[in-house]
Amino acid sequence: MRRLCYVQCMRRLWGPAQVKNLHTSVCQLQRKKVMEADKPWALISEVGEQGYIEDVTDIMTQHFQIISHRDFLQNPQLHAPKIQAMFVWNACPAAKPSLLTSLPALKVVANGGVGIDHLDVPYITSLGVKVTNTPGVVSDATADIAMGLLLASARKIVEGHQIAVDPKTTHIPQCLMGVEVTGSTLGIIGMGDIGHKIAQRSKGFDMKILYHNRKRRSVEDEQAVGASYCESMDDLLRRSDFVMLAVNLTPETTGLISHRELALMKPTATLVNVSRGLVVDQDALVKALQSGTIRAAALDVTHPEPLPRDHPLLGLPNVLITPHVGTNTYTTTRRMVQRMVDNAVAAVKGQCIPNEVKTK
Amino acid sequence: MRRLCYVQCMRRLWGPAQVKNLHTSVCQLQRKKVMEADKPWALISEVGEQGYIEDVTDIMTQHFQIISHRDFLQNPQLHAPKIQAMFVWNACPAAKPSLLTSLPALKVVANGGVGIDHLDVPYITSLGVKVTNTPGVVSDATADIAMGLLLASARKIVEGHQIAVDPKTTHIPQCLMGVEVTGSTLGIIGMGDIGHKIAQRSKGFDMKILYHNRKRRSVEDEQAVGASYCESMDDLLRRSDFVMLAVNLTPETTGLISHRELALMKPTATLVNVSRGLVVDQDALVKALQSGTIRAAALDVTHPEPLPRDHPLLGLPNVLITPHVGTNTYTTTRRMVQRMVDNAVAAVKGQCIPNEVKTK
Repeated sequence: MRRLCYVQCMRRLWGPAQVKNLHTSVCQLQRKKVMEADKPWALISEVGEQGYIEDVTDIMTQHFQIISHRDFLQNPQLHAPKIQAMFVWNACPAAKPSLLTSLPALKVVANGGVGIDHLDVPYITSLGVKVTNTPGVVSDATADIAMGLLLASARKIVEGHQIAVDPKTTHIPQCLMGVEVTGSTLGIIGMGDIGHKIAQRSKGFDMKILYHNRKRRSVEDEQAVGASYCESMDDLLRRSDFVMLAVNLTPETTGLISHRELALMKPTATLVNVSRGLVVDQDALVKALQSGTIRAAALDVTHPEPLPRDHPLLGLPNVLITPHVGTNTYTTTRRMVQRMVDNAVAAVKGQCIPNEVKTK
Repeated sequence: MRRLCYVQCMRRLWGPAQVKNLHTSVCQLQRKKVMEADKPWALISEVGEQGYIEDVTDIMTQHFQIISHRDFLQNPQLHAPKIQAMFVWNACPAAKPSLLTSLPALKVVANGGVGIDHLDVPYITSLGVKVTNTPGVVSDATADIAMGLLLASARKIVEGHQIAVDPKTTHIPQCLMGVEVTGSTLGIIGMGDIGHKIAQRSKGFDMKILYHNRKRRSVEDEQAVGASYCESMDDLLRRSDFVMLAVNLTPETTGLISHRELALMKPTATLVNVSRGLVVDQDALVKALQSGTIRAAALDVTHPEPLPRDHPLLGLPNVLITPHVGTNTYTTTRRMVQRMVDNAVAAVKGQCIPNEVKTK
């Protein structure tokens, strides 16, 4: 009744054509509101300092009504029955049994990134909930940070910058001599998509590329990047000037690099880790760096993250650490969130899921 | 007479064979001493903190008797007549007319590095003294630092490290979002050997490579690295996500990048300079970085070096500076010194000089 009055009133003020247009707009708005209400609910960590950048929320809200974990916790009884998807970003919200079992309508845990070591996939799938990740879209940015860390460590870019801007600097000290990247030997451990892209980048630096992987890659894959297979990881460790860790974290790769492996490396060699902190025995690494068993380490990942502020790695001059920023670019972040949403939409609709993680 | 007594005495203590060997060794030592005295003298800056690393002196002393500038200045009248070669490293010793004209036997000023903007070549050659540099051997290391700076700036590696090791860090802030390197457009200004090697490296990152050069390179050279020629530098500046300066410093390239050029660049673009500080109008660069005309700058070179400690570039958060370490690796440094010595030996002997710099 109120709407009719409003339309009649408008008709008096404007012509019939304009009122028809206005009527159409009002209807569209109402449909949009109904459609919005139809969208499934997704639980996310948060938007802001420790969660998603603002720029990506539009990707999520296009298909989901989103609620942050903080808001969810204000009234779990109210929100829990609605949640059909959970977006896990930087391992948040933690996919704990207490949370998962409180969400009766949950259909999917959509993880941002490839590594799903923080998810108990057999348990989650036993609840009838799908698990997804975002392979492929993170590989370029991760391979880029890998090369950035390798070059920055080899050529002492961080120390160089610190000296260049230091108020006390009057000249360049000789300690800023780096090691040669061009023509050196790179040993890649873990030759998945990321490892292969690291090899592709290293080829441009005329590096000799060795790799170790559970399964040898095809001859075509090897030739495309000029990489040679090392069946023995020890052999790779002995021969490499730079050892690059690009494996997934699994029970087999946990503590993969410890005292024995570090001792096999050249004293002039550098360890670069873009996989997961737990792949390296950090106590062994500290000793190797302190004693000169290896030259240096460049780590985008540690365990935990961030490290406790009194951790010895933080005080060593031959360590470069970045705080797990392998995929931290605007482009890659948007691609990851888009892929999470694509996976979640498919799972909610019961369609074929692009990147489902299945229990082995 | 004394030597004869010594040999007779030895003959009594040892057998004749041993004494013959000893005799031979003494003669060799004397010959070596005589040979040492035959070597021409070379004036160098110094060995130590601000000069050459210890590891390279053997290359110089194989063919020259060396004297540091400091020792030279203790008694110029004594030393000056002997000096046949002058090795210039990091522009030291400065090749001033007063010094050059005090060296009557000087045959060559052998520079370490390619850039000879600190040498007055027409003046030096007018004295009948050759000038040499070391092209080729520095290209790989310089191209590596160029890529290292590009990646470190794009992915905020220095800021990342500072946050990772900061005693106050509790989480990773969102401001550590970088820009994508893979697939971006790189514009190289100056496509000599170094520029070409930068292009070769960028190809592995699937970058679109544009270049501007006085002379267009051959189609083979372009195809080898997948680079496209931009006849107009303005066009390159407008289209590039990363602008890389790899020109020589000449009157034409001094101040090449100033207000107008920076304004043509994308607000998301990064300027990388591995050529010479004077190629960029630094006041214009400061303004462009402060106002957001461009995203960031990564500089291995400034003017002067180091910058005055109150220079505004040192305080900007979007600037990465390394203190001219483009060739600072052990391998490249040894290659450079070897090439300086090869050039100087040839000049002193009046032979064909591998890398003579001639006045245009």
